[in-house]
Amino acid sequence: MKPTNAFVGPLLTDLYQLTMAYGYWKSGKHKDKAVFDLFFRKNPFGGEFTIFAGLEEVIRSLHAFRFTDQDIAYLHHGAYKQKAELQRCFEVGLENGFIRETPKGLEEFRFDRWGIGSWEPTGYPEEDLMVPAPLPACEPGFFDWLKDIDCSELKIYAVPEGTIVFPRIPMIRVEGPLAVAQMQETTLLNLTNFPSLVATNAARFRLAAGIDKGLVEFGLRRAQGPDGGVSASRYSYLGGFNATSNARAGQLFGLPTRGTMAHSFVSSFAGLGEVTDPFLTGPDGKEHNFVDLVLHYRRTLDYQHTNEGELAAFISYARSFADNFLALVDTYNTLKSGLPNFICVALALMDIGYKPLGIRLDSGDLSYFSREARKAFKDIAERSSIESFARLAIMASNDINESILLSLGQQGHEIDIFGIGTHLVTCQAQPSLGCVYKLVAINNHPRIKLSDEVDKMTIPGKKEVYRLIGENMHPLLDLMTEAGRPAPRVGKRILCRHPFSEAKRAYVIPRNVISLLGCVWDGRQTYAFPSPDTVREYVINQISVMRPDHMRSINPTPYKVSVGEDLYRSIHELWMQEAPVAEIS
Amino acid sequence: MKPTNAFVGPLLTDLYQLTMAYGYWKSGKHKDKAVFDLFFRKNPFGGEFTIFAGLEEVIRSLHAFRFTDQDIAYLHHGAYKQKAELQRCFEVGLENGFIRETPKGLEEFRFDRWGIGSWEPTGYPEEDLMVPAPLPACEPGFFDWLKDIDCSELKIYAVPEGTIVFPRIPMIRVEGPLAVAQMQETTLLNLTNFPSLVATNAARFRLAAGIDKGLVEFGLRRAQGPDGGVSASRYSYLGGFNATSNARAGQLFGLPTRGTMAHSFVSSFAGLGEVTDPFLTGPDGKEHNFVDLVLHYRRTLDYQHTNEGELAAFISYARSFADNFLALVDTYNTLKSGLPNFICVALALMDIGYKPLGIRLDSGDLSYFSREARKAFKDIAERSSIESFARLAIMASNDINESILLSLGQQGHEIDIFGIGTHLVTCQAQPSLGCVYKLVAINNHPRIKLSDEVDKMTIPGKKEVYRLIGENMHPLLDLMTEAGRPAPRVGKRILCRHPFSEAKRAYVIPRNVISLLGCVWDGRQTYAFPSPDTVREYVINQISVMRPDHMRSINPTPYKVSVGEDLYRSIHELWMQEAPVAEIS
Repeated sequence: MKPTNAFVGPLLTDLYQLTMAYGYWKSGKHKDKAVFDLFFRKNPFGGEFTIFAGLEEVIRSLHAFRFTDQDIAYLHHGAYKQKAELQRCFEVGLENGFIRETPKGLEEFRFDRWGIGSWEPTGYPEEDLMVPAPLPACEPGFFDWLKDIDCSELKIYAVPEGTIVFPRIPMIRVEGPLAVAQMQETTLLNLTNFPSLVATNAARFRLAAGIDKGLVEFGLRRAQGPDGGVSASRYSYLGGFNATSNARAGQLFGLPTRGTMAHSFVSSFAGLGEVTDPFLTGPDGKEHNFVDLVLHYRRTLDYQHTNEGELAAFISYARSFADNFLALVDTYNTLKSGLPNFICVALALMDIGYKPLGIRLDSGDLSYFSREARKAFKDIAERSSIESFARLAIMASNDINESILLSLGQQGHEIDIFGIGTHLVTCQAQPSLGCVYKLVAINNHPRIKLSDEVDKMTIPGKKEVYRLIGENMHPLLDLMTEAGRPAPRVGKRILCRHPFSEAKRAYVIPRNVISLLGCVWDGRQTYAFPSPDTVREYVINQISVMRPDHMRSINPTPYKVSVGEDLYRSIHELWMQEAPVAEIS
Repeated sequence: MKPTNAFVGPLLTDLYQLTMAYGYWKSGKHKDKAVFDLFFRKNPFGGEFTIFAGLEEVIRSLHAFRFTDQDIAYLHHGAYKQKAELQRCFEVGLENGFIRETPKGLEEFRFDRWGIGSWEPTGYPEEDLMVPAPLPACEPGFFDWLKDIDCSELKIYAVPEGTIVFPRIPMIRVEGPLAVAQMQETTLLNLTNFPSLVATNAARFRLAAGIDKGLVEFGLRRAQGPDGGVSASRYSYLGGFNATSNARAGQLFGLPTRGTMAHSFVSSFAGLGEVTDPFLTGPDGKEHNFVDLVLHYRRTLDYQHTNEGELAAFISYARSFADNFLALVDTYNTLKSGLPNFICVALALMDIGYKPLGIRLDSGDLSYFSREARKAFKDIAERSSIESFARLAIMASNDINESILLSLGQQGHEIDIFGIGTHLVTCQAQPSLGCVYKLVAINNHPRIKLSDEVDKMTIPGKKEVYRLIGENMHPLLDLMTEAGRPAPRVGKRILCRHPFSEAKRAYVIPRNVISLLGCVWDGRQTYAFPSPDTVREYVINQISVMRPDHMRSINPTPYKVSVGEDLYRSIHELWMQEAPVAEIS
């Protein structure tokens, strides 16, 4: 059970987790019983909801939480600067170089002038080759302890992958020995922040596009690194996309993939002379002179001034993917060249018995071009009596974001499928979700992090979270209570309070009560990973029962997150106890 | 020579690269001699410069460009839905499950109710377990060809890692068989877009903070996935940062790492009773009652109303890192608790002979708090006659971005070191750089991608790039010429033209000429990787010779990118030839 990304492990962390672990160890506190909450304080993108994602990778990281001998050696003694050494080899005129440690000392691999390589002792003092150790002064006993720990003493609760969540709700609760629980912080945040952000972004794009549109994720090239791209593909599918262009994500997670052609394909053809084989076999096995057929339509429809290289490219692509023909039509001129060229090739394919898919627009006024294209398709459908021609797909891409989707919806458009890249995968509107991981109890005593900004205060203690459901399955609000208190009961009136604001209170009679936190790890994995399709369906189902005013793009209503009377008192006692009284002079 | 990220390989690509490859293969064009340029059209962050980065990983990806049998099988026939299967095991009440293929068919690993696991045949039809293949209909001959290809026929030129670059300059030029060169597109873009963006962002933060300030990258938890974090650490170091908190990046690339404590460390201590061992051995080997010493200063300075848990945390941390003591002072109240507690512990450490480092501010008005802290340090220095106390380090973090750095500089502050996370690593101001990869020549014929927006047009043909240097080592402008033409000569007047605008021309007499593109791959690697420190120095040196008005944050002057007369003519001929004349009616 390995993490999907090989970087994940106990060193994928901020160094201060390790210095703190040493501090705990030195003070004999490292086994204190701690509880940490992972949560965020503000929904992203100016919205009022967030989709929690990343749980599978969190659990995989728990399996991988073992310091290797190499990790320990690096922390305590440093490591060899392999790359710096390669540079030196280069500077001294070698073509390439490697370094290895042997009982006789360091050796580098050198090529002589005949190109024959051999291992030779390096000419550089050993200390020059060392990366400084992050923790050189820590006692050896600490490293012995580090070598032995794993996650077998942790107990972890989480909301299921794909759950709609709200500010201050603990999405993950980690219980266990203080130092081990502390060292999960950075990894868990890294593995949930971006997945949750992308899943939320994708859900917002889905809401903006409408449930009947196709949404394909196109962002790998603009993503923040290979993992940024692969994660974006994975979690935008969970958030409601239909497919991705990313073949690796398709392979890793079994996602549907899509892809057709780029401008370079079109511009690589200079003219019809490059179509060396004019024939195409129909689905019935009969061979047809496909080029003649295309040129026949070109003459008939008087499309003879289109770009010939583009036409050659379309013909070649149609010969390769006769049943999946989708043409990029804006390389030279969308309405004067791309669209007429597509129409000729599509009519020829239909003649032979194939079903072309449609076109992709990648620049210009997408609303206008899509309406012009639909007009042309309808016109051809009428003239040729091929009714299905009117319904050919129109795909659009080109820097589409949520506002463009909303604005296209208002302008009216004829687009069936959107290809969305940069804005989706980098979450351009807000590229980071502010998840945090805070100590809320130690040795059964609740702890609080105060702040001058009330919103930044933590809700102390070990807590349970309930979603109270009203009429029509609408969630009414979320309620946090102290762990161990009886759960709210269906049909029973319960007082829900704002955590910090005394006057904000409400009585709620739930029709149904969902307990959100489940045990996913109890020294070992206790949660089986749902498939991407299962999570995607879960996300869509939850969105469909949320009150629409919480979900709208513009000026949504906040969903209430409340605490029970018990927790309210506990927060305020601790607050008064820890906060100094200001002195104003 | 493996890619640093294991996702990198021929499937880390947009599917359309593979459909296009099939299209080329079917048309017999896959071995056509192609030239692609990788470049961007607009500098990021409203600036006028970009730092190119990612070349090492690009070259590593070339080594890894081999389709495995598993890759081919996935593309042609699909793959097993392992994760979906796990979910099924869960739904039928199993605690966990795995799946494997055997000669007898599919088996899953099941646990019985006694917790004993065994392999059993699955109860599900095989087709339910399949991920659909992306290219089911392609001819087998294509996959045979795919299985055999690698990058041995490519020739690649690039500007060195860390070079300052400008819009439209080809940073990488790929020459070789059309289909193989085409298939590098997405991977190369993914591996250069984000690294270049982060390195540029880091250089901007460095310019905004000033050369004398410490800059530490803190962003792993908010980064876009594990690789987003690791890449951000790596490339912000190249761009001018001093260190990172990311231990994995430290280990992988030999970067300096830094880390002290978080709020949870402070709040995990409730009172002085938790300091079980009050003693600390000084550098001279003598043992001291450290707690008594701290409490002595607390009484003397009348700091007795500070938070005791915080004081206990500082004492414990100081006992662990007596020579690296840096305290986070805002958990309860910066000026009333954190700062006084720090002062007591720091004075006690100094008494024993250690040198504390300083404090970290993580909330509130950083300018005000830093000035108050400096005032307090100076006051103590005076009262205690320990001069160095006045110079203790003040570190600040908390959502710092480029504008905050500039504004702090204007307000006046006493901060020595900035810890920067989210805004740096996610490049919040602009989370994506628009690098593109365009076909510029095929079979020695230049190709152009037209666009209604002149800025989006490509510069056709295989080109060389020269940086013309003037007085004081200042670069004057960059010049692109057709490859094969003589290079500009030092002291010799040369006409440089705007690529699209006829009237914009200038004569330049360069004092020096730098040819920017060098061969990094000629069927095999021909470029040795420089160390991070070498690249970092190269970046800093280049910035120092740029004219400051190109580099400033607000309203910078664009740096000129020009073309030679030869290239100018070639662009305009091709433009006239390919662009249709509009008809207005």
